[in-house]
Amino acid sequence: MGIVGLGLMGGSLGLDLQALGVVVHGLVRRDAVAERALGRGLASRVGTDPALLQTCGLVVLALPLDLLLQPPPSLMAALPPGALVIDLGSVKAPVLAALQPRLPRFVGCHPMAGTAEAGVDAGQAGLYAGRPWVITPSGQELPADLHLAEALARAVGAVPVRCDAGDHDRAVALVSHLPVLVSAALLLAADEGGDRVAAGFARLLRQLASSGFADTTRVGGGNPALGALMAQGNRDSLLQALALYRLQLDRLTAAVDQQDWQGLRRVLERSADIRPDFL
Amino acid sequence: MGIVGLGLMGGSLGLDLQALGVVVHGLVRRDAVAERALGRGLASRVGTDPALLQTCGLVVLALPLDLLLQPPPSLMAALPPGALVIDLGSVKAPVLAALQPRLPRFVGCHPMAGTAEAGVDAGQAGLYAGRPWVITPSGQELPADLHLAEALARAVGAVPVRCDAGDHDRAVALVSHLPVLVSAALLLAADEGGDRVAAGFARLLRQLASSGFADTTRVGGGNPALGALMAQGNRDSLLQALALYRLQLDRLTAAVDQQDWQGLRRVLERSADIRPDFL
Repeated sequence: MGIVGLGLMGGSLGLDLQALGVVVHGLVRRDAVAERALGRGLASRVGTDPALLQTCGLVVLALPLDLLLQPPPSLMAALPPGALVIDLGSVKAPVLAALQPRLPRFVGCHPMAGTAEAGVDAGQAGLYAGRPWVITPSGQELPADLHLAEALARAVGAVPVRCDAGDHDRAVALVSHLPVLVSAALLLAADEGGDRVAAGFARLLRQLASSGFADTTRVGGGNPALGALMAQGNRDSLLQALALYRLQLDRLTAAVDQQDWQGLRRVLERSADIRPDFL
Repeated sequence: MGIVGLGLMGGSLGLDLQALGVVVHGLVRRDAVAERALGRGLASRVGTDPALLQTCGLVVLALPLDLLLQPPPSLMAALPPGALVIDLGSVKAPVLAALQPRLPRFVGCHPMAGTAEAGVDAGQAGLYAGRPWVITPSGQELPADLHLAEALARAVGAVPVRCDAGDHDRAVALVSHLPVLVSAALLLAADEGGDRVAAGFARLLRQLASSGFADTTRVGGGNPALGALMAQGNRDSLLQALALYRLQLDRLTAAVDQQDWQGLRRVLERSADIRPDFL
């Protein structure tokens, strides 16, 4: 099996698969990364020469979204024509559009797992255990290849979820990409608000921020490059999600502005009611 | 010492103070609550008759904001004229305006501690340990009374922070009340977004919501009555905070809309940079 990219997703997959006895060939771009990956045991063999993939029957592309959308020609040339290729990108319709026409056997996947870490030191055993592993068939896949993707997911303890690529992208826009912007805007507003008043106020703000603020801003303080790439790859769905969000924020703001405290309380009751379904 | 209200804040205070050997008289409104509070040991004596406060030299009002702003006449009449009265309300300028003119010795406080729980079963030992305990002098207090409030905070392990009541209210609008609305709007948008597409989509949304969504929506799924009361008590500052928030959300939305991915990345880098200061 081949894994292209040994960051958080690829490295974690390599650790789990080797624990199951699979021989994993890991392809990375820099010698220093290859050395570190080998030192950490992320793959059985690691190198920077795409020829490393020649003997692989299954190749997982564990690459950032920009590289999935515009893969290096040398990588595309090195993918064995008979191999099943699977990607793990966080946006699916554009990746399917970019890769499926160019690969005889391709299945799009998105394991919903992650930590705040990235890079060759981020991979960890058990990352996928119990997490949803989305598979997005387009209708062009062989049934056996979809089963293989499901078997891969189950092998690392994940729960396969099949859905349409467009549905996936609309869903993650709402529950994953929108929260990043909502949360970042809160950090920026608090920071900006602190600067507008006297000097001591900025310090007071930071003293009084408690666990609620920390939780609400966690994803907004995450990896900026990843956040920007997800927004770029899922722009249309994210803009729709932002429009929906703005309507709800307007509704809450109007209740405060118009002193409709009963109305505000009813809306907050609704939000408290629906949250458990999302957990 | 008297505590009026034995919910999360009052009950926790009662537990901590008794552990230090203080005799605590707890005043509640209903017999059933008095019985339960006594059973839990939240105070040495508990009752519904305001006369219970007669011997107290220090009385803490651990009441919901609406009762602090419009305290029952029977309660006001029962506060011993010589006693220092302290409140624990989450908004300070309106409480000072409501209570300070009517009480010879009054100090406004806001311990920044909490859990998702409320009511007579919510109080817990150690709730205040390590948390900021805001004291908001108006200039009308005796220095000795401010020191007494600080000593109370330190006695339960909290860290006293003195600031202007208006500054406090502006700060909590940004780091505490705004997050509730930001977070609730996200839950409502995700729920609304799920209803607009096919039936299976609402289920998919809930399957794909991960820890990031859970964190970002935690405070939006909190106590609706408390959220509405805080908004009511701090309306002006909250509207200002909402306006600041909207500017930042507009800025992020414009970057996505105009495909300014470098600009979006820079803004996300800024938000990642400032977050550690708030933790």
